[in-house]
Amino acid sequence: MMTMTNLKVGIIGAGPSGLAMLRAFESERKKGNPIPEIKCYEKQDNWGGMWNYTWRTGVGKYGEPLHGSMYKYLWSNGPKECLEFSDYTFSEHFGQPISSYPPREVLFDYIQGRIKQSNAREFIQFNTVARWVDYIENQKQFRVIFDDLVNNITFEETFDYLIVGTGHFSTPNLPYFKGIENFPGTVMHAHDFRGADQFINQDILLIGSSYSAEDIGVQCYKHGAKNVTISYRTNPIDCKWPIGIQEMPLVTHFEGRTAYFKNGEVKDYDAVIFCTGYQHKFPFLPDNLRLKTKNCLYPDGIYKGVVFNDNERLIYLGMQDQYYTFNMFDTQAWFARDYILGRVTLPDYATRLADIKAWIAKEGATHSGEEHVDFQTDYIKDLISYTDYPMFNLDKVADMFKSWLKDKEENILTYRDKVYTSVMDKTSAEQHHTPWMKELDDSLERYLDEVPADENELSKTNYY
Amino acid sequence: MMTMTNLKVGIIGAGPSGLAMLRAFESERKKGNPIPEIKCYEKQDNWGGMWNYTWRTGVGKYGEPLHGSMYKYLWSNGPKECLEFSDYTFSEHFGQPISSYPPREVLFDYIQGRIKQSNAREFIQFNTVARWVDYIENQKQFRVIFDDLVNNITFEETFDYLIVGTGHFSTPNLPYFKGIENFPGTVMHAHDFRGADQFINQDILLIGSSYSAEDIGVQCYKHGAKNVTISYRTNPIDCKWPIGIQEMPLVTHFEGRTAYFKNGEVKDYDAVIFCTGYQHKFPFLPDNLRLKTKNCLYPDGIYKGVVFNDNERLIYLGMQDQYYTFNMFDTQAWFARDYILGRVTLPDYATRLADIKAWIAKEGATHSGEEHVDFQTDYIKDLISYTDYPMFNLDKVADMFKSWLKDKEENILTYRDKVYTSVMDKTSAEQHHTPWMKELDDSLERYLDEVPADENELSKTNYY
Repeated sequence: MMTMTNLKVGIIGAGPSGLAMLRAFESERKKGNPIPEIKCYEKQDNWGGMWNYTWRTGVGKYGEPLHGSMYKYLWSNGPKECLEFSDYTFSEHFGQPISSYPPREVLFDYIQGRIKQSNAREFIQFNTVARWVDYIENQKQFRVIFDDLVNNITFEETFDYLIVGTGHFSTPNLPYFKGIENFPGTVMHAHDFRGADQFINQDILLIGSSYSAEDIGVQCYKHGAKNVTISYRTNPIDCKWPIGIQEMPLVTHFEGRTAYFKNGEVKDYDAVIFCTGYQHKFPFLPDNLRLKTKNCLYPDGIYKGVVFNDNERLIYLGMQDQYYTFNMFDTQAWFARDYILGRVTLPDYATRLADIKAWIAKEGATHSGEEHVDFQTDYIKDLISYTDYPMFNLDKVADMFKSWLKDKEENILTYRDKVYTSVMDKTSAEQHHTPWMKELDDSLERYLDEVPADENELSKTNYY
Repeated sequence: MMTMTNLKVGIIGAGPSGLAMLRAFESERKKGNPIPEIKCYEKQDNWGGMWNYTWRTGVGKYGEPLHGSMYKYLWSNGPKECLEFSDYTFSEHFGQPISSYPPREVLFDYIQGRIKQSNAREFIQFNTVARWVDYIENQKQFRVIFDDLVNNITFEETFDYLIVGTGHFSTPNLPYFKGIENFPGTVMHAHDFRGADQFINQDILLIGSSYSAEDIGVQCYKHGAKNVTISYRTNPIDCKWPIGIQEMPLVTHFEGRTAYFKNGEVKDYDAVIFCTGYQHKFPFLPDNLRLKTKNCLYPDGIYKGVVFNDNERLIYLGMQDQYYTFNMFDTQAWFARDYILGRVTLPDYATRLADIKAWIAKEGATHSGEEHVDFQTDYIKDLISYTDYPMFNLDKVADMFKSWLKDKEENILTYRDKVYTSVMDKTSAEQHHTPWMKELDDSLERYLDEVPADENELSKTNYY
């Protein structure tokens, strides 16, 4: 990328959001248009954000809180056709149809495939954490202190625009339950879960009722946990669970390895995994620049879900709760790019505030999963209308999300065997060579292997 | 405490070092002498530093890297007579003799006992983390940004002197071994070890050969691990291990749950605990104010082990590797206090540098544990000579350390049953009512219980 404007843009994070931002500018540069000077800083040693798997837990090699919540045997929990880039399809990347629910390595490979087409890597400084941001009012610039973790050196940079793409599934929300401090087995948050293997033959308790509880529960069941209990605070997940997974109301307290539940039942466990969600956390920002929100579809304080309303030069990407993911980050990045380039003009503060409040009111009126999908679909349609991000058939994607919700409700163990059709290039997904419940190997090699060596050993049809 | 000088002193951390600093000023105030305005900030929700046990691992309630490395069933691993405060004895606190190796709750109670005699708590703001420090050259002041974790609010303060008492046993050093990412059982650093219970009946591998490996190994053995292997890089710990604990040279790599060792042996494990030490880490300091050191008895760059040589207004407490602990922090805090109050005058930069280098050279000439003890003894004697910290018989304490080294070598399972005599008030420790290897309850209540209910069940004499 060449510097062709006199602006300097800092991007914090090289995960799906930060990479979308780099891609958005790259796409503009390729057209021969001027773009700002860009620098991107990433805490981890590679790009990919959450998709950059690490075996570490707690803190990283240099003692920073770990970004990653990824675990072995994670497969996409939504159809890949719902997260496909509009400008880089799965078919273009793999050269062949693949299934609708690929495992983590495959999705990571896909994300990398697009960004590797550019020289984006040159603009990213890895192992570097944003330590502190000051906004210098009279210069209208951000002073950012970075910490080069490898060399143990701090340095500062100034930027005209600052893009925060640090994600919000990294800082565990971990409530206290009486007696947990004396629980004699493993106690962890889903953030530190690295795979089901250590829970084989164990009786495990998951606290929570969202994606983490659902998926970790099913993973542990699949890989051989003795029994899985999912304890919900308000409502059960309410799937048709197989024998070996059951839902219970909230734990009230623990005594030794015994959990007591609200309904009066008690049960002993070997391990407790808190699937109690994440906090939005921005330790490098002063609180007047901090997005302060719970996990929702339309966080307060950011116009079009992107521009911080109290400081127009601060941009957040990917801070929403997510049905849409990669392609939503794209539409946000394209919007941010065109705003920085001056093609999108912001209305005044009060008008922006009213727009934010209107979207929040609209979210408030949604209740079902289907309504949430429609809400986020409308949000993305609105965003794309401002930019040249290649429009795609969002209504069809919304339909796929709704089918996916039904598939999960019908059978939580087999929904990943369903196939969908790309709205980007009409490619129909292929059935994976092995039913998901029988597939214990999540490697890219095994996934792309057309006739796995042990295929004949698997009784594919028996499972359903 | 009243403000009686026009200086403002900030203390970061309310662990044993920060509390020693508060105590040092309090002791001066009690004499009717002027002291500076003091504010202390603590990341955790209580004082006590490492002694403030938490069940959490990885990050704390608010997503900050956890300070605590404390675990259930930790008993002092050195005689309490070696860490006794010179101005507040164990006898004064407990009103009766106790054993020489008390468990964590008892030591925490002792630390608190002294500081509770003052109104120090009023000067500590809890749940507050130092986020960023700038040194303002022309004002000769530090601007410190703090983050109030509970209220999600940042604020700044300025100080004439800044005391860093944040410890250095909180940031894990966690090296990579080939294949560890596919190890199917528990993988953790000692920092996240919270007790031996989860390893009952397991075959566990500890990597490392210092205090963590030695103590976690023995704890897991005591509480029922099936087998404990301790893998060393350079030298074995070389105790007389019981059957069930053995030392091995370094792991070369893992395949599945199998560890391969340098000597060609292989063995399967259920869990791997990295006892590979800690990093000195100061994310809130710009690198020109950062102490950069490995764990040693005389870190480079701090005069008398306390005053940062490149900025005389920055003070570090407790940054040494430690034989002496609480009373060493005291002597450092007393020195820092008298320096701030202008009673101790620093020589010029070059003289200080030469002094530091001389001490480092002296440390370089030490090799055995006994020589290390003598080195730290000399260091503390030197420090006390500048202040009015009540002198105590350091040579006798050094002798106790040397006996302790022998006790451990003789029998790693019974050294905690030995008793020593206080050099502060001549109190002889009492034999604990239960031999350490038979004592599975580490609570304060149980410890102070003179005739435990289950005493008769224990065959005290059989053990030895």
